[in-house]
Amino acid sequence: MIYFCALMKVYNFSAGPSILPKVVFEQAAQAIVDFKGKGLSILEISHRSEDFEGILQDARKRVKQLMQLGNEYEVLFLQGGATSQFMMAPYNLLPQSGTVGIVDTGTWSTKAIKEAALFGQVQVLASSEEQGYNHIPKKWEALEDLTYLHITSNNTIYGSQYHHIPEVSIPLVADMSSDIFSRPWDYSAYDLIYAGAQKNLGPAGATIVVVKKSLLGKTGRNIPTMLDYQKHIKKQSSLNTPPVFAVYVCWLTLQWIEEQGGLATLGKRNAAKATLLYDEIDRNACFKAHVELEDRSVMNATFTMLNSEKEQAFLELCAQHRINGIKGHRSVGGFRASMYNAMDLEGVEVLVEVMREFERMG
Amino acid sequence: MIYFCALMKVYNFSAGPSILPKVVFEQAAQAIVDFKGKGLSILEISHRSEDFEGILQDARKRVKQLMQLGNEYEVLFLQGGATSQFMMAPYNLLPQSGTVGIVDTGTWSTKAIKEAALFGQVQVLASSEEQGYNHIPKKWEALEDLTYLHITSNNTIYGSQYHHIPEVSIPLVADMSSDIFSRPWDYSAYDLIYAGAQKNLGPAGATIVVVKKSLLGKTGRNIPTMLDYQKHIKKQSSLNTPPVFAVYVCWLTLQWIEEQGGLATLGKRNAAKATLLYDEIDRNACFKAHVELEDRSVMNATFTMLNSEKEQAFLELCAQHRINGIKGHRSVGGFRASMYNAMDLEGVEVLVEVMREFERMG
Repeated sequence: MIYFCALMKVYNFSAGPSILPKVVFEQAAQAIVDFKGKGLSILEISHRSEDFEGILQDARKRVKQLMQLGNEYEVLFLQGGATSQFMMAPYNLLPQSGTVGIVDTGTWSTKAIKEAALFGQVQVLASSEEQGYNHIPKKWEALEDLTYLHITSNNTIYGSQYHHIPEVSIPLVADMSSDIFSRPWDYSAYDLIYAGAQKNLGPAGATIVVVKKSLLGKTGRNIPTMLDYQKHIKKQSSLNTPPVFAVYVCWLTLQWIEEQGGLATLGKRNAAKATLLYDEIDRNACFKAHVELEDRSVMNATFTMLNSEKEQAFLELCAQHRINGIKGHRSVGGFRASMYNAMDLEGVEVLVEVMREFERMG
Repeated sequence: MIYFCALMKVYNFSAGPSILPKVVFEQAAQAIVDFKGKGLSILEISHRSEDFEGILQDARKRVKQLMQLGNEYEVLFLQGGATSQFMMAPYNLLPQSGTVGIVDTGTWSTKAIKEAALFGQVQVLASSEEQGYNHIPKKWEALEDLTYLHITSNNTIYGSQYHHIPEVSIPLVADMSSDIFSRPWDYSAYDLIYAGAQKNLGPAGATIVVVKKSLLGKTGRNIPTMLDYQKHIKKQSSLNTPPVFAVYVCWLTLQWIEEQGGLATLGKRNAAKATLLYDEIDRNACFKAHVELEDRSVMNATFTMLNSEKEQAFLELCAQHRINGIKGHRSVGGFRASMYNAMDLEGVEVLVEVMREFERMG
């Protein structure tokens, strides 16, 4: 018999890897000691075992169900994070003679631009760089001649988010790493969606790719096996040994999402948390939001201090209240509160109370 | 307080993912519930946190120490398994005009051949395919004009292993997925070593790459960021979010290796296990070994039954004795006993006793 004990509750606002449901942590720990009472750890079972094959295929099915997608789409669990997808997407979709349109809304868009340029032409349709990426550009040039449009649906670093799906007549590709499954959404408007798992889905080490099959096989390019979506589809995400444990934790989290009431419930909960925090940022005389009102992210709230000399004092007050991961990314400075699905309202209430206390301290 | 309980001991001979030390499972489960008493799970801490940065850099250092390599080498923890390295190695090392020599000793070699052919010329120097990959070819044609030589040091599927390092004047590249850290070895004879973690090192989801820096940057090729060894080296294996948990478990296992007495102890232990099992295979009237005597793998013993109709009965007897993962790969049939570092002598003794019991049953 092994005893495990967590001593104190910490409010984890980290941007990713990030908070997951407590019950998922417990189930994952149990499976490491003894998976399903089999006397084996989840870390040592074969990826070809009936148990794991079942988990992997059920996880793929659950993703499709949550997204309400039909059989024209395939779901893959891969490795390498969204950063690998910056390269795999154009490798699979963009012919050497083609042009991809990319909307530049921050760090992740610029990385996607850099990788796509290795495979074809890139047209940066719009950029909010000069305004410190404080909004989502909404006016673009004509798209007719483009192979596809690439957007970053939520910008983890700058804290901006698309609240409307771009209406386009060309295939739409989205990096949804930091807002996948955060709200009811028309996923069928997209042709390719990818997301690193380590925010709303699971631990670092798994990447979800959802792709419309009709998009593939058109570049005329000879794609290395591990980079070829079609080959992964053919092998049902088991082309080689998948990251078993990371997929298992994603599967647990997907079940948790359903148990919570699905995307409708999570969407309401996330909106309530974001409203609570942004209202306080706007009200509180010490802080100001980084992003324009209409484009603020429900997942990652970025805010700075009017008097930047007091930043360290606020961080210390947060630490005293066991608030973790609140320090802003160096690109924006100040603070960032990531409120992913597993963060409950209580955590945000504690943060808001600490902001009020800080204001009172003067 | 959470209680976790493993009910019964199972002898896990799976080929990978595979057995790891019991203490590593316990430490990993503890860290998922509460990492270092911080009130956070290892699954939710930032990869940029001081704690994880320390673990990642210490893991890289420990690999180098175990291999007794100098500063001309770099150690990376990547994702995607050895299958990704089949493509990344030639992407980084093989100019379009170059030729790589590959010795074909089974499934993994043939996959390496297929991927390398996308980047340059491939010369298959020798192959044991016609003999069912039952040995390691030792005579090759001249190597002078080759960019590098690629070998698979241990063939997980066919159960053969190099017991001598090829003496060559060109760079030597090895896929060591299934025998890394299984014995004292002159790792400095190699210029590039890679290994999926899920045998002797950790769970599926991490891949070790050890590379001599002077080999890199010579192809004239524009390599996508995530496939470029030099870019990973520059970012000290944190180019993007690493697979935190998989790296953590590798780090625990690396410490366990040291605590056991390092590669000298493990080498002796592995030799004793292999001798015990192969002696029984050769002695027992029911079984025969697949691989020629001098090339048998100390990690994966492959053997078949003289009367193949009895195979199912033997598998059932194994299951009764809680022996797991003994069924052979379809390429060879029969049985495969993988005896990685974490498998103790007792496990092999149980298997040998079951083989004797089966023989007595007639």
